[in-house]
Amino acid sequence: MTVPRLTTALAGPLPDLERQLLDSQIEVERWLRGQWQDHAAPFYCSVDLRNSGFKIAPVDTNLFPGGFNNLNPEFRPLCVQAAMTAIEKACPDARGMVLIPENHTRNQFYLQNVAVLQTFLRQAGIDVRIGTLLHEITSSTEITLDNGTKLKLEPLERRGNRLVMNGFDPCVVLLNNDLSAGTPEILTNLEQAVLPPLHAGWTVRRKSNHFKAYREVAEEFAQLLKIDPWFINPYFEKCGKINFEEKKGEECLEGYVSEILEDIRAKYKEYGIKQDPFVIVKADAGTYGMGVMTVKDPSEVRGLNRKQRNKMAVVKEGLQVHEVMVQEGVYTFEAVEDAVAEPVVYMIDHFVVGGFYRVHTKRGQDQNLNAPGMQFRPLAFADPCSSPNPNDPGCPPNRFYAYGVIARLALLAAAIELEQTDPEK
Amino acid sequence: MTVPRLTTALAGPLPDLERQLLDSQIEVERWLRGQWQDHAAPFYCSVDLRNSGFKIAPVDTNLFPGGFNNLNPEFRPLCVQAAMTAIEKACPDARGMVLIPENHTRNQFYLQNVAVLQTFLRQAGIDVRIGTLLHEITSSTEITLDNGTKLKLEPLERRGNRLVMNGFDPCVVLLNNDLSAGTPEILTNLEQAVLPPLHAGWTVRRKSNHFKAYREVAEEFAQLLKIDPWFINPYFEKCGKINFEEKKGEECLEGYVSEILEDIRAKYKEYGIKQDPFVIVKADAGTYGMGVMTVKDPSEVRGLNRKQRNKMAVVKEGLQVHEVMVQEGVYTFEAVEDAVAEPVVYMIDHFVVGGFYRVHTKRGQDQNLNAPGMQFRPLAFADPCSSPNPNDPGCPPNRFYAYGVIARLALLAAAIELEQTDPEK
Repeated sequence: MTVPRLTTALAGPLPDLERQLLDSQIEVERWLRGQWQDHAAPFYCSVDLRNSGFKIAPVDTNLFPGGFNNLNPEFRPLCVQAAMTAIEKACPDARGMVLIPENHTRNQFYLQNVAVLQTFLRQAGIDVRIGTLLHEITSSTEITLDNGTKLKLEPLERRGNRLVMNGFDPCVVLLNNDLSAGTPEILTNLEQAVLPPLHAGWTVRRKSNHFKAYREVAEEFAQLLKIDPWFINPYFEKCGKINFEEKKGEECLEGYVSEILEDIRAKYKEYGIKQDPFVIVKADAGTYGMGVMTVKDPSEVRGLNRKQRNKMAVVKEGLQVHEVMVQEGVYTFEAVEDAVAEPVVYMIDHFVVGGFYRVHTKRGQDQNLNAPGMQFRPLAFADPCSSPNPNDPGCPPNRFYAYGVIARLALLAAAIELEQTDPEK
Repeated sequence: MTVPRLTTALAGPLPDLERQLLDSQIEVERWLRGQWQDHAAPFYCSVDLRNSGFKIAPVDTNLFPGGFNNLNPEFRPLCVQAAMTAIEKACPDARGMVLIPENHTRNQFYLQNVAVLQTFLRQAGIDVRIGTLLHEITSSTEITLDNGTKLKLEPLERRGNRLVMNGFDPCVVLLNNDLSAGTPEILTNLEQAVLPPLHAGWTVRRKSNHFKAYREVAEEFAQLLKIDPWFINPYFEKCGKINFEEKKGEECLEGYVSEILEDIRAKYKEYGIKQDPFVIVKADAGTYGMGVMTVKDPSEVRGLNRKQRNKMAVVKEGLQVHEVMVQEGVYTFEAVEDAVAEPVVYMIDHFVVGGFYRVHTKRGQDQNLNAPGMQFRPLAFADPCSSPNPNDPGCPPNRFYAYGVIARLALLAAAIELEQTDPEK
């Protein structure tokens, strides 16, 4: 956990917001501690952040995080410790867990993530086996990863209201599959605990619910810090009746784009910011950055051509897009060796356990960096976000601390969102 | 948190016991998880261990641990994370804490420990100020340590049933003072939470109560692992009516020494161990290894000379010794560069956060290594004890994992001991 001074590129004195977060560390941690008394953190979570210097905001809160393999292996003990807490809360008596991954059996990076998850969960004291939703896997199948690690995928079976696997009866089901393809019947009405809950899956979940919860969290937190909530909260609106293929709902979309661009322009003026405002139009459900557009003028969403419409109409697993979110775009001013970089923070239970930069050489400061087919180079944070030194203004952990705080605000919003959208409440 | 391969000296294949602990990791962690559902871990704790190759056992369980400065600074984030959990449990709403240190204002090592504690508790989100019991400190006094760190000691005041300090009203009192000098009146009947509780102080606490609780923990744990509990539990007896100065109670002591030596001899025979059995005679209350003798023959405790009697009669802060414990001695087979080494494991709440070796060049394998005036060189563990790799038998984290398990058994025994000795129950 040594901290080389190279892995954050925003040089110079800390911007005001980071400074304020640092100076209020005790108050911030105490406030968060109080929130976790009232709200249960999801089992795990990763948050994509954007830092424009004047503003740090979450742009994506992932409740089925992949990419644990991108974290600095030196922080692995933090994952073990945090997983112990998560398991204690969710299933203290649990002996066995089934981990259900995505169906990408050819994606080495993703499979390495699964292997890392399995390893640290075992170290935290739970027997983890990997159960796959892939129909073609009908018996225990070993995969050897490029780095030599072996993974065993096993078929899932349903026995009454329990999910079992060839002689293994897990006490808890951990999803690392975001259910974009729908909620498989084999997972419904289980008597075992399912983490995160099924309504966190993308068939049900809506980004706008998340950002609505985040807005409230951000407003309360901003009061604590006595700052404009806009410094941590991007404007957004939801547009609920879009049909890109039939060109329906474009006026609604154009209206919101225009409204949000105006709102940003006013704030940029208030704070003397010289950049061009932009918004991101994205599907309200779904992930992997499919169905995402950068827009600087309302006219751009009018009369989309066929290619643009096709791009927006469908996301992962063929999920149709009829609801979109228009969200204030946040420039990313972080760069690593001249390439644009976006920080991603990982949490288990309510603890920050590390993060990495998604580094793109071919994208601009105003573009989404998590897009299908995009190559990014992960650069692990050199510090686990919990040990800032306010007396050393140039020290990277100070920046990471700020990221860890904003990521936890998004985590808290996810906790509240899951309470509010719980179908059983 | 990289793991160089130099910091454990017991080379070669893992002894059976360490192997068994490793192979049962999931069961061990699950069992411990269940225990922590029933028993609240003390706020923090350090445990001195001895590893004889065939046996790993705690020999001292310290509820007011100094020496946090000896831990690998790379593990600091583990301390922060564990302290967050400890604070959440003890005092989630707490804004401020007063830390009461020992009265050694000239011991640089100890003061560095206080500085490290203050730093990571603040990072965990609590405002920590240092309140001293020293009467000569009547106003806020800044001390600059050799390493440049500044510490501010402040006088304590009592306001009704609250402990306060010059405008600071802490919600919780953290003791890093073992109360060998008695329980100061200023600390009694406080309405604030006191951690660890006052009855953990050496005026009240008895080692024999601890080891009685440990014996029960060890027996249950040994059943889980299907091992002889003796592999993790040293024999002991308590001798309650000793007066070294008046040469009273020597027969009782001699009797127990003889009995325990016989019991060890039988076990050594059973397992084909060639060493000479020995016992440690130590004060039942008190710390710092004062009042400790290594005995290989019962006759050695008969007719002690004046020097020996004086050594045994009084421990830290002039506490008179009238109760002693006779405990099976455990050889330490760990060595660092030919010097005898004893592992010390640190915990916050129920998490292992690191450890170090106490390395002595001038002591034997059968001697107590924590003695007054003794110089030891601390050697931080290169690994935080939570990430063993059972597939790599030579890997030091495997040994550290075993240490982390036995230390947590002692921690659990301390939790049970504090419940059993609680004057309010």
